[in-house]
Amino acid sequence: MHIPNLLAKKRDGRALEQSEIEWFIQHLHEIPNEQIGAFLMACQINGLDAHETAHLTKAMLEQGERLPHREGAVDKHSTGGVGDKMSLILAPALRACGAVVPMLAGRGLAHTGGTIDKLESIQGFNTGLSIGEMIENPCFISRQTAEIAPTDSILYAIRDVTATVPCIGLITASILSKKAAEGIQALVLDVKFGRAAFMQHSEDARALAQSMVRVGTELGIEVTAQLTQMDHPIGSMLGNSHEIAESIDCLKGMGPQDTMELVQAQAGELGFDIAEVISNGSALNEFKEMLVRQGVEASLAQQLIEDPWSVLPRAPQQYTLNAEQSGHLADLDALVIGQVLCEAGAGRSVQGAEIDHGIGIQIHKHIGSKVEQGEVILTLDGPYGIDMQLIQRLKNSITISDYQVGVGSRILETVTISNCSTT
Amino acid sequence: MHIPNLLAKKRDGRALEQSEIEWFIQHLHEIPNEQIGAFLMACQINGLDAHETAHLTKAMLEQGERLPHREGAVDKHSTGGVGDKMSLILAPALRACGAVVPMLAGRGLAHTGGTIDKLESIQGFNTGLSIGEMIENPCFISRQTAEIAPTDSILYAIRDVTATVPCIGLITASILSKKAAEGIQALVLDVKFGRAAFMQHSEDARALAQSMVRVGTELGIEVTAQLTQMDHPIGSMLGNSHEIAESIDCLKGMGPQDTMELVQAQAGELGFDIAEVISNGSALNEFKEMLVRQGVEASLAQQLIEDPWSVLPRAPQQYTLNAEQSGHLADLDALVIGQVLCEAGAGRSVQGAEIDHGIGIQIHKHIGSKVEQGEVILTLDGPYGIDMQLIQRLKNSITISDYQVGVGSRILETVTISNCSTT
Repeated sequence: MHIPNLLAKKRDGRALEQSEIEWFIQHLHEIPNEQIGAFLMACQINGLDAHETAHLTKAMLEQGERLPHREGAVDKHSTGGVGDKMSLILAPALRACGAVVPMLAGRGLAHTGGTIDKLESIQGFNTGLSIGEMIENPCFISRQTAEIAPTDSILYAIRDVTATVPCIGLITASILSKKAAEGIQALVLDVKFGRAAFMQHSEDARALAQSMVRVGTELGIEVTAQLTQMDHPIGSMLGNSHEIAESIDCLKGMGPQDTMELVQAQAGELGFDIAEVISNGSALNEFKEMLVRQGVEASLAQQLIEDPWSVLPRAPQQYTLNAEQSGHLADLDALVIGQVLCEAGAGRSVQGAEIDHGIGIQIHKHIGSKVEQGEVILTLDGPYGIDMQLIQRLKNSITISDYQVGVGSRILETVTISNCSTT
Repeated sequence: MHIPNLLAKKRDGRALEQSEIEWFIQHLHEIPNEQIGAFLMACQINGLDAHETAHLTKAMLEQGERLPHREGAVDKHSTGGVGDKMSLILAPALRACGAVVPMLAGRGLAHTGGTIDKLESIQGFNTGLSIGEMIENPCFISRQTAEIAPTDSILYAIRDVTATVPCIGLITASILSKKAAEGIQALVLDVKFGRAAFMQHSEDARALAQSMVRVGTELGIEVTAQLTQMDHPIGSMLGNSHEIAESIDCLKGMGPQDTMELVQAQAGELGFDIAEVISNGSALNEFKEMLVRQGVEASLAQQLIEDPWSVLPRAPQQYTLNAEQSGHLADLDALVIGQVLCEAGAGRSVQGAEIDHGIGIQIHKHIGSKVEQGEVILTLDGPYGIDMQLIQRLKNSITISDYQVGVGSRILETVTISNCSTT
């Protein structure tokens, strides 16, 4: 294959053949970076059609190892948000319902949190299971190994620095090549839109959801996708250890309404009603079992679910943000809040950097609620002597209005293969 | 500067600022290749506007060394063809008219010949002058040094493998950043179109000509461009030593009409009439002087101009291609002929490969002439035992028709700053 000819084809807006895409992915490790960068930019600008996207996903899947298919194995994937802790609740709840849950998850990206970073708040938790350990395990949350969809790591690292992250075809292939490697039967996708999501507009999120539902179906997985709003933070606790603490509240049946609506809807799309396993404590017990199976000492796991803050790290200094006027809490800007958290040390600005798992935010008032001047809206748990410009930006993320603001469901719509328009 | 933001801007079709382009070129040597590849692909697909092209050209020019400006210094550049030997005639002829000619030239690209390769047919000719030697020299033809527009070498090597060669803005910047570094006052461009040119269509060649005339004018150079047809080979001799031999014929006033029309038109655009210096022998003498100044022994130079084939290499085996029917010679396909010559060893398929300067073709009959069955149309001077498939392809490049074919001027039009539409 003459690579410049393949690049010229994509450059000129012509669709690549299955054999061309397969060849490119099979030889990816030996193709010079300048050609990969040019390929990705051509895909980004001219798009990948449904066939190209499916071929790319399959080629990436086939280049790596796969977990064996397990009957009843299910998973969920979110495109990333602020306060998005639903995986931590959903995995043990689904297991308590009898499902097998082989969940490969990621670290935080930009201003969004990552399930793996959150779990690493818990002392001893092993996020790097081997493929053998994954196969033996009925419910786990682990990082991707180097053997699963290895070409995704190459492409992702280059997309990240070449402004080619938002391409729908490339996102689809990246996510589904990994999810298909889990050997699952059904998958629910949480595709976020809004100012703190990677897709700002619902039309783009819908196009991505449709692309993923189509390709996932073609790979033999029952896939549905929910489009959900990501303008305001999800739940009351944001940050790594903070979201572990709130997930335990949720598993005890004491979670915030918005978070539980999303978890229940996701379970529902997979055919499970998790209300019972939460109210009878079996979901919480499965969470504890999962921790123990992944390396946490049993006594510590027990203490964690009994009194989370007795074992979780929490930054030493509380910075409170109070209402500057009376009225109704009209807005909390999740993008600003996520960026401040990340810059304060809960996330990374450089790949591989250390993070502080104890930095986080507690939200004391929710959108639409009445507030009096001076009441606490947010508390930031941060390091001593934080840059006050971060506190000022947090302050600016809060909008109080004279008028009552309505609050509806975060779920805009559900995309399934039957309502998924073909292109 | 955050490079992904700059890439995103070009990806989204927005014009880059002068400061952004300058920064990118100033830091080019430390920017990872995947980002350069993505940048070039975004430029290729979305184009560079007139301002961006001018900023890019200036930034590339300013990153390297420049020859001092010399009053009356002129040059010519061709976008590359088959049998295009006009520089070899023009440089000494212009010098004989009193001009200073600091000519930086290149090697063959794909199926086209290169002036530097042709000159290296002559024993002792030094194509690698230093900047100091260039400054002392009133008329030279040399390779670009590493100090002149060094960023062009980086960009060119990546364009070559990323299907981003045909971008008009990038071609303009590549050519003019080198030409402006020569310190010239006037420049004539031979912009070719047709099946053996890099631009197939006259519209694309016109757009490139306009872009180069505009940017060159902005750099303070008097630039005109001629659009010329490149469907049939130029002149009677093709190949490296073969074109040196024919150039000497031209300098003796015995050159083919089509070649001389182009040389005279190019000189005319620079304000010179070369008819006199050719007929009185002073152009030929300047050619000999140039050879001697660039390292050729005086006696060998004298012998070369007296009897070229007594000193030039010529491949040992003659393969003749005869007319298969009587009629009129309707077509010689310059692309096929150029490709066969290149594959036979007169050009390179891999950068840095050795070439055989003695391989070439002599054309015995010209387009439009009457031929009898069995008459010789072409002779290929090649190695013994050449692949007969090459001979078959040469045969297929010849079309003989029952009807007389008209032959006109190769020059379609001249683009100057006054007739150059602005975009």
